Parts: sequence; structure tokens; C-alpha cells
Amino acid sequence: MIQRRQTKKVYYGDVAIGGDSPVTVQSMTTTKTSDVKATVTQIHELEEVGCDIIRVAVPDQQSAEALPSILKQIAIPLVADIHFDYRLALAAIDAGVQALRLNPGNLRNPESVQLVLKSAQAKKIPIRVGANAGSIDHAWLDGLDDSLSREERIAHGMAKGALQHIKILENHNFTDIVVSLKASDVITTVIAYKLMAQQCDYPFHLGITEAGPLTQGTVKSSIGLGILLNEGIGDTIRVSLTDNPIHEVHVGRLILQSLGLRREFPEIVSCPTCGRCRIQVIDIAKKVEKALSTLKGNIKVAVMGCEVNGPGEARDADIGIAGGNGYGILFKHGSVVGRVPEDKLIDVLLEEVKNILAEKGDI
Amino acid sequence: MIQRRQTKKVYYGDVAIGGDSPVTVQSMTTTKTSDVKATVTQIHELEEVGCDIIRVAVPDQQSAEALPSILKQIAIPLVADIHFDYRLALAAIDAGVQALRLNPGNLRNPESVQLVLKSAQAKKIPIRVGANAGSIDHAWLDGLDDSLSREERIAHGMAKGALQHIKILENHNFTDIVVSLKASDVITTVIAYKLMAQQCDYPFHLGITEAGPLTQGTVKSSIGLGILLNEGIGDTIRVSLTDNPIHEVHVGRLILQSLGLRREFPEIVSCPTCGRCRIQVIDIAKKVEKALSTLKGNIKVAVMGCEVNGPGEARDADIGIAGGNGYGILFKHGSVVGRVPEDKLIDVLLEEVKNILAEKGDI
Repeated sequence: MIQRRQTKKVYYGDVAIGGDSPVTVQSMTTTKTSDVKATVTQIHELEEVGCDIIRVAVPDQQSAEALPSILKQIAIPLVADIHFDYRLALAAIDAGVQALRLNPGNLRNPESVQLVLKSAQAKKIPIRVGANAGSIDHAWLDGLDDSLSREERIAHGMAKGALQHIKILENHNFTDIVVSLKASDVITTVIAYKLMAQQCDYPFHLGITEAGPLTQGTVKSSIGLGILLNEGIGDTIRVSLTDNPIHEVHVGRLILQSLGLRREFPEIVSCPTCGRCRIQVIDIAKKVEKALSTLKGNIKVAVMGCEVNGPGEARDADIGIAGGNGYGILFKHGSVVGRVPEDKLIDVLLEEVKNILAEKGDI
Repeated sequence: MIQRRQTKKVYYGDVAIGGDSPVTVQSMTTTKTSDVKATVTQIHELEEVGCDIIRVAVPDQQSAEALPSILKQIAIPLVADIHFDYRLALAAIDAGVQALRLNPGNLRNPESVQLVLKSAQAKKIPIRVGANAGSIDHAWLDGLDDSLSREERIAHGMAKGALQHIKILENHNFTDIVVSLKASDVITTVIAYKLMAQQCDYPFHLGITEAGPLTQGTVKSSIGLGILLNEGIGDTIRVSLTDNPIHEVHVGRLILQSLGLRREFPEIVSCPTCGRCRIQVIDIAKKVEKALSTLKGNIKVAVMGCEVNGPGEARDADIGIAGGNGYGILFKHGSVVGRVPEDKLIDVLLEEVKNILAEKGDI
């Protein structure tokens, strides 16, 4: 349904970004990268919930030295996040990372840039460049049209910064580029990516930076990424939350699922309970959500309060339950197929879900 | 920044919807409306977190009889949600509710419609009409252009349904109308409201219906409402969650705040912690979020991991903290103003927040 922006395709290992490839979900570890065991454990947890690509900070030599051992133990592409120090970039490339997050304009000198780019090019490693609203050079904002809003001015500054980094790479014939333009403000971020979409065809890594704790960060990321993805902009996403990165992956997948861009995990349709409701919809929906979180497959599951309206309102659902008095009904695509005592309702529903997924060949 | 769609202004009691009035946040009680004590308690909790308008289901005579007593004890406008039975609508109007949620096409006969509309008109009570994807007449979809997607077809059906209800009201010269078009699918909902925006100038009540449990419902509502509000569409919103309605209000306010449409509550800018981080950003951000949730006022508060990058990246923040080793720094608009032992950091920050809000006259 969504017409995606035409972008160049690059590869982080086996995982494609851009072109016609599915939008991928990224996250970043919160462990010390030099602590191999903790880092690998966290990456495994993130793989489990559907993380497609993982990034680790490489702020020092010990972190760089940990990379080969981490890489041996994980199944998804690893991006090394490096600031300023070209030697860390070279070490990460040698270790075999699948991509770099690096701004070439921040490396010490042209020789360092050339060394890093030659090395990355030899190993076909893409580089993500970007500008964050918090680190733009405010001198760039001079000379911008006075009629622009504050958000537009900052967005222009971000795009300008990113284009400078892109220019450096292109001057070295390096074009395996992914671009990010993150602000903590939703409107600024949206404007920045839209501006940049007119100026290059590199794939975009979307994110709202410093979006905040779980709920606020989920809202801001969903709005910002949702607006852009709905307009076809965005090839890989990262939801930034000040919380366990498992939530980042979960929210990222839900964003893609809500827009029909990925459909690999069960979706729940459930009504807000109201004064008409005869079963504990909230409790049941939470239990169903928890049980479904360990399953993969494209299925829509309904949990409705009302046996009269529920099946019709949730006729999109592959399978669903609705409440009565002491018992509930089971329905498929709007038609009632059974009647189940309330205390058996969740078990019966989950059994049916597994059957449907098995029929589809999803499990 | 956002240019809002030009709409007619209507009033739910003192609270304006549409025109140049701020976008309002609604919720719905989950108690039995006939249980006055439980219902009033829940409404007070929702008022406390910033709910502007509250809706209650009125499925039976006992619920209608409870309305006068509920109305006496609450400070925000009350909307009575009524299906099919015109006598309940008349009882709710007599009780003094500030608005009705009712589809006139579902009332028994033209005489019932006329009675309800005359009575509502005499008391200047607006009516919200709407169509949900789950209850459209599928016959309406016949004859639609074959090139339309499934989502577009359903959206057209929803708009058609809502226009029929609007027509009935207009035929009685009743124009204090608010319109809703809810689907559980984000794309369908967005298309439906955009279609309707071309066909009338009544204010819109936005919502994604049956959006699911807390996280999924937050994501779907944020995307759907975010896309529409960012395009200037939407005058009042309800986030539907299968959870305590307090979360509905909280998420609703965060959506408006993220788009700069309302700025009455503190906003947190906080970084996702990473391998570079020296303080427990997640714990600190959660504690700060909790403490701020009881405050009102337009302030941006930063919680950053890194004392080197934090102040610059969060220079938008009125006040912020960033971590060091055993101590943290306090900064205002990007400039460091103090150094505080880590165990005092949160207390000092909150003290400063209150001072700033007091200076602004917000508390």
C-alpha cells in the first residue's frame, strides 16, 4: 500500500537496507562492549524478539578488541559506533563488523579518512553518516530565510551537516552510505528527513533521538517514524528509549506492523473495556499479549468484551474471543465457532492460534 | 506550526471543540455507569491526569438514572454514549450531560429522532456521530472503483455511513456535530478522516478503535493520530487502550505535546543509555518521570548519560542533569551550572524544576 521512496540498496552482511528490501529494526546494546559475555547475552535477547541489526559503541581499544569474540557468537549484523578515532574504525573493520556508524568529518585528518574508507570499501562495509540536532554547527543557520520556523532552521542545519559528511565519502567514491538525521523534536526530525529525501537517494536510518522514557519515547518515535514511513520515507529504523532495548525492538516492530510494512508477528485487536463489558478484558488481553509475544507468524487475534458486537467489530481477526456471563465465545472472521467456559477461554484461544499458524506453515 | 483544518466550533459545556480551540483529550470510563461512586472516583482520577472530556456508556435505565448524581460531582464535560434507545438519550439530555454520542440512523423511527434532536437543540447539546469499520454496511462497498485498495474501500464505506447520519441531523437543522471514523487499522483510519475532511467542516473526534493492549495501542494510536494531527486534521482525540483509562489520557497528552499542539506538562529528553554511559540513566529517568508526572507546566527536562555530550545535545532543555563518576552535572540550556553528588542529583533537579515553574508562574 505505501509507495516507498526509491533508494540505493546497501548490505550490512546478509541484511539489505534500501531498494525493495523490507524496513529493518535496529537497536543498540547498553552493556560495556568490552564485557563480551554481557554484550552477547543482550544481543541474543534482542535477536530473540526480532532485532534485525545491532549496534555497539566502540569508545576505546578494549571495546574494539572485544568485537571478534562478539561477532563469533551472534547471528545478526553488527554495526560499530565510532567517534573521532580512526584507529578504532580500522580495528572494527578488521574484526569483521558488517557496518560502521561514523562521521568522516570528525576524523582527525584527510589521511585517516582515506585509510578508513579504503579499508571499508575493500570489505564492502557500508557507513552510516548523520547529523543530530544537538550537534549541529549553529553558524550554519546564519543566512537561512527568516521566514523559516525554528524547527525548519534546525532541520536545514542537520541536512547541511549530513551532506558535508556524504560529500567527503563521495569524493572518495564511497557510496555504500546510509543517512540519519535525528532530533529529539518530532517535527524537526520529520522536516529534516523530508528535506534530505529531495537531495539524495541513499537509504535512511530513521530515529527520534533522546525520545525519553518508555511511554514518552514510544509516543514520539511512533509519531515521527510513523509520519515518515507512511510517506514512504525510511529503510531501517531505531526506536531510542531510555529503557531496556528489548522495548526498542518491540516498539519498532509494532510501528512497522501497524503500517503493514512487516507482518511477521501476531497482532491483537482488543476493545477498551466499557460499562457494557461482562468479562475482564484487560486481564485477558494482557495474558494473551504475553503468550503471543513468544510466537511468530502473521495472525490477527481479537479479545473483545461484548459477545453481541465483538465478532462483527473484529471480523478482520483470524480468531477471537468475546465475553458473556461465565462463558465466552470463540469466533473466526466474524462467525461464532464455539462457546467456552471463561476459565478455559485463553487456553482454547492459544490452541487455535497455534493451529492456524501451523496450517499457514508459520510455525 | 501545524496549520489546522478550518472547522466549525461546538461546545461541550465550557469546553470548545473545533475552530481555533486547543485539541482536547477524551477518555471513557470502564466502570458500570450505574455504580455512581466507582464512576465518579474514576472520573476524578482522569481529571487529575489532564482528561478534558469524559464519556460514559448509558446502556440501560439505571445508568441514565445515575447521570445527575455523577454530573454533580465532576468538573469536566460528560458525554453519554447511547445506542438504539431514544428514551435513554432523552433521559441523558434531561440529566444535563454536555454531549451525546449517538447515531441517529440507529434510532427506532423518525419520530424518536425528532424528539431527541429537538431536546438536544433546546439545551445546546452537540452530538457526535460516526462510523466504525466494524459496523459498516458491506453493501455500501459495491460499486466502488476496483482500483481501490481494501483499506480505501472500507474508508469510503465509513465516510458514507457517517455522511448518512450527518444528513439526518442536517435535515433537522441540527449542526452541532462532531464526527468520528474509527478503524482498528491505522491506514484505513487515516484515509477515512482525510476523505471526510474534504466533505464537511464539522470538527473531528480522532481515534483508532480496538487498538489493543498498552504498548500496541499506544503505537497504533500515536501513528494514526500523529499522521492526521500533523496534517492539521483532528479537534479532539481519544486513545483507546485495553488498559486503565489513565494511560489513555497520558498517551493522548503525550501525542499532543510531541506535536507542539499542547504544552502544559513537563517533557523529558533522555538518551538511551549506551556503552559510554557512567550513570544509571534508566533508573534516574524513570524516577524523574514519576516525580514530574504530578507537576503541570511547560518545561523541558533532560536526563543524559554523558557529561561531555549531554549538555550540548540537550541544549533545548530548560534544565538537565548528566552523569560523571560518582557525581553529576546540572545544566541549563546547554551551560553547566553546578556539580552534584550522584545520590543528590534527582532531588536537586526536581528542586530546580519547581523553581523554574514557579518563576514562569506555572505553579
